[in-house]
Amino acid sequence: MSAEQTIGRLTDLAAMPAAALPPQARRLARFSLFDWMVVARAGADEPVSRIIRDVVADEGGRPVATVVGAAARAPARAAALANGTISHALDYDDTHFAHIGHLSVGIMPAALAVAEQCDLPAAQACDAFLIGAEASCRIGMVLGRRHYERGFHQTATAGAFGATVAAGRLLGLTAAQQRNALSLVATRASGLKSQFGSMGKPFNAGISAANGVEAAALAARGFIACDDGIGAVQGFIDTHTDDASEARGWAAPPPGRFVFEDNKYKLHACCHGTHAMLNALAEARRQTDLPADRITRIMVRTNPRWLHVCDIKAPRTGLEVKFSYAFLAAMALHGVDTAADRAYVESLGADPALIATAQRVVVTGGTEISDTAVALTLILASGERIEVAHDLAAPLSEPQLQAGLRAKARALLGEAAAEALWSAVAALDTLTARQLAAHLAPAD
Amino acid sequence: MSAEQTIGRLTDLAAMPAAALPPQARRLARFSLFDWMVVARAGADEPVSRIIRDVVADEGGRPVATVVGAAARAPARAAALANGTISHALDYDDTHFAHIGHLSVGIMPAALAVAEQCDLPAAQACDAFLIGAEASCRIGMVLGRRHYERGFHQTATAGAFGATVAAGRLLGLTAAQQRNALSLVATRASGLKSQFGSMGKPFNAGISAANGVEAAALAARGFIACDDGIGAVQGFIDTHTDDASEARGWAAPPPGRFVFEDNKYKLHACCHGTHAMLNALAEARRQTDLPADRITRIMVRTNPRWLHVCDIKAPRTGLEVKFSYAFLAAMALHGVDTAADRAYVESLGADPALIATAQRVVVTGGTEISDTAVALTLILASGERIEVAHDLAAPLSEPQLQAGLRAKARALLGEAAAEALWSAVAALDTLTARQLAAHLAPAD
Repeated sequence: MSAEQTIGRLTDLAAMPAAALPPQARRLARFSLFDWMVVARAGADEPVSRIIRDVVADEGGRPVATVVGAAARAPARAAALANGTISHALDYDDTHFAHIGHLSVGIMPAALAVAEQCDLPAAQACDAFLIGAEASCRIGMVLGRRHYERGFHQTATAGAFGATVAAGRLLGLTAAQQRNALSLVATRASGLKSQFGSMGKPFNAGISAANGVEAAALAARGFIACDDGIGAVQGFIDTHTDDASEARGWAAPPPGRFVFEDNKYKLHACCHGTHAMLNALAEARRQTDLPADRITRIMVRTNPRWLHVCDIKAPRTGLEVKFSYAFLAAMALHGVDTAADRAYVESLGADPALIATAQRVVVTGGTEISDTAVALTLILASGERIEVAHDLAAPLSEPQLQAGLRAKARALLGEAAAEALWSAVAALDTLTARQLAAHLAPAD
Repeated sequence: MSAEQTIGRLTDLAAMPAAALPPQARRLARFSLFDWMVVARAGADEPVSRIIRDVVADEGGRPVATVVGAAARAPARAAALANGTISHALDYDDTHFAHIGHLSVGIMPAALAVAEQCDLPAAQACDAFLIGAEASCRIGMVLGRRHYERGFHQTATAGAFGATVAAGRLLGLTAAQQRNALSLVATRASGLKSQFGSMGKPFNAGISAANGVEAAALAARGFIACDDGIGAVQGFIDTHTDDASEARGWAAPPPGRFVFEDNKYKLHACCHGTHAMLNALAEARRQTDLPADRITRIMVRTNPRWLHVCDIKAPRTGLEVKFSYAFLAAMALHGVDTAADRAYVESLGADPALIATAQRVVVTGGTEISDTAVALTLILASGERIEVAHDLAAPLSEPQLQAGLRAKARALLGEAAAEALWSAVAALDTLTARQLAAHLAPAD
């Protein structure tokens, strides 16, 4: 239950030299940066994005940080609030299952805004994000599942500590200042899961990022918070979970590796429970030529928990298609891009070819299948059977991940914009944060 | 345990016509406004005040709302953050014991900033504060003592809902928008008691006010939060207390009266446990000429709980004097102004005249005395005994309250500034919010 050392460990993490960061984690952080920029741009015209951008524009202020989709820059704290919200608007960003939340949307906006404000290299922003993400994972693990089950949204709560670490590192806080910033954000971190399904969910990512920028800025000017706002009696952990475990947060992983490396990327714009099936189908189609009309039966074996989540047999809307094994399988077999959010149009459920294929899908539950896995059997007209399995828990290779993220980017933004963004992130070491962030704003 | 109706009741409260407000509550709200302006100005040069003002000034932005002690105005959200923090810096503001928190510092800055932004009459800002304060009391009572005991700081948590009501009313939100604002602030409201003793405590008042302005501004632009972020499953109440009671919040008081009317004002700059004694001594001195050297013994009978809090026999510092019955009694009998924060100088404990009087004070505990009361016996050199009792629970008459607050203002700000402020609040119905707020900024 003790959590007294958490703040000290987070403070140490914030000061970690870039050269000591695990190389794989650094490479993955760049994938996160790319994916975050993609979903931020793709979500820029959502209603919640326009609202938060308008409020920030109305306030005005020193133009130091880019706001996604806005011509004018804003103060870093405001840009972080807006960009966290905008980038989570589609709910199509990365997820870390041990942290229980979305890392990039709550932390990257803080890192990027402060790096822009201080005119730092883009690579420093990405490293600061990585360290902030690791900090969020660790405190998320200390807070544990009971924190989430009580109703708190780790993306926002644990996220704010990571955003503070990232912002504080980029502002060059001393260890004492960083500790003050972390202790201070403990009184400010908030976010409830009851907002799910409303604009309040993406807003939670925004408040995480803004809280980090705010706490770091105050600490930089000499703000003295209590000694330990996180792990002390009636600190954040004590007040926000009934099952804290410092061991859970700090025992793993082995040296030279970051918990962050288990981060998962969403490559299909639909329910996470269907992703293993979509990946298995993609694999089958890579192995063999597979016209939809040659398949007489598609047997999907999944964990029973998903049968109540994403097995809508006759979806009536684009949103319902996102929760339909049968229709998603049909889309994949007919070559419809499941990564493109705009593919899920309202008329999809009425498409005769898709309906015909969807009717050949049989979904069954089996407890021998984990909830990240699927076992697929395709029976062809020739009588041939194709067996293929997939488990999301197995990490993608970096080439697979790169291919998947770039395909997702193309589906969301179109070829030219996607590849321009990819080139920018690939050339990260040559760019300033301001040059990188310019890709988030409309051309003048 | 049900809290489902809370959000509807708060929304109704926000729309209450000014003419329907209880007259006594409206008069008391003006005392709160005056007292808030006094402590805000008196705290303007505290270290935390300078830090928050610098951060806000650094951000800049549309100059619509006054920041206490600053030449330049700021956006309403930033001004609310700064002014909440600055006005709580001395911890010398009002307290509501049923709400368990400080009402004016977490709500008034939101009301004033939005009223300035919208160029509304000052009296409308004060009415909006009153309604916000009543809303905070009610939700504070629903959250209950267990919320406080878990570690949450009602000034900030319950305060944010009141600040939202005040800001939303002044922005002219529809009932649906006001409900959205309240549901939204539920994911943003935060504040921990573990910050007590640090700059984090006044900051908690600032975040209350800023959260209210932010939520109202977003709702005004069409932000849709979840249907009920307050009382629904995993809403604010469910996640932040284990002993919610809607009945506790909404049963009392009788129609035509506001819970707000039980608000208490701090009239001495020392521990609350000593205030009953100081009021009793003031009463004795009003009744009879009472030179300190004619008194041979001062017998203070108090509730035993205070013996561990404010009975330091030989205080070594000005701060320790604030927790010393004996020295405070001596100060009162020697005519030192206990309302003036600056009276508590470090050398006080070494003053021979005060020491001589303090040594004649005998403090005893008795459970027959409530913790808001005192029974005092003064024995004079002539043998005469003077008995006087005081209970803080008994409301001061309005003339007494006015006299006390004006004396406090004079002690903190000096005669001229105090009376100029008093005149401004007395003429509230003739002023705009901007004209009133100008009293918080330095002359150009």
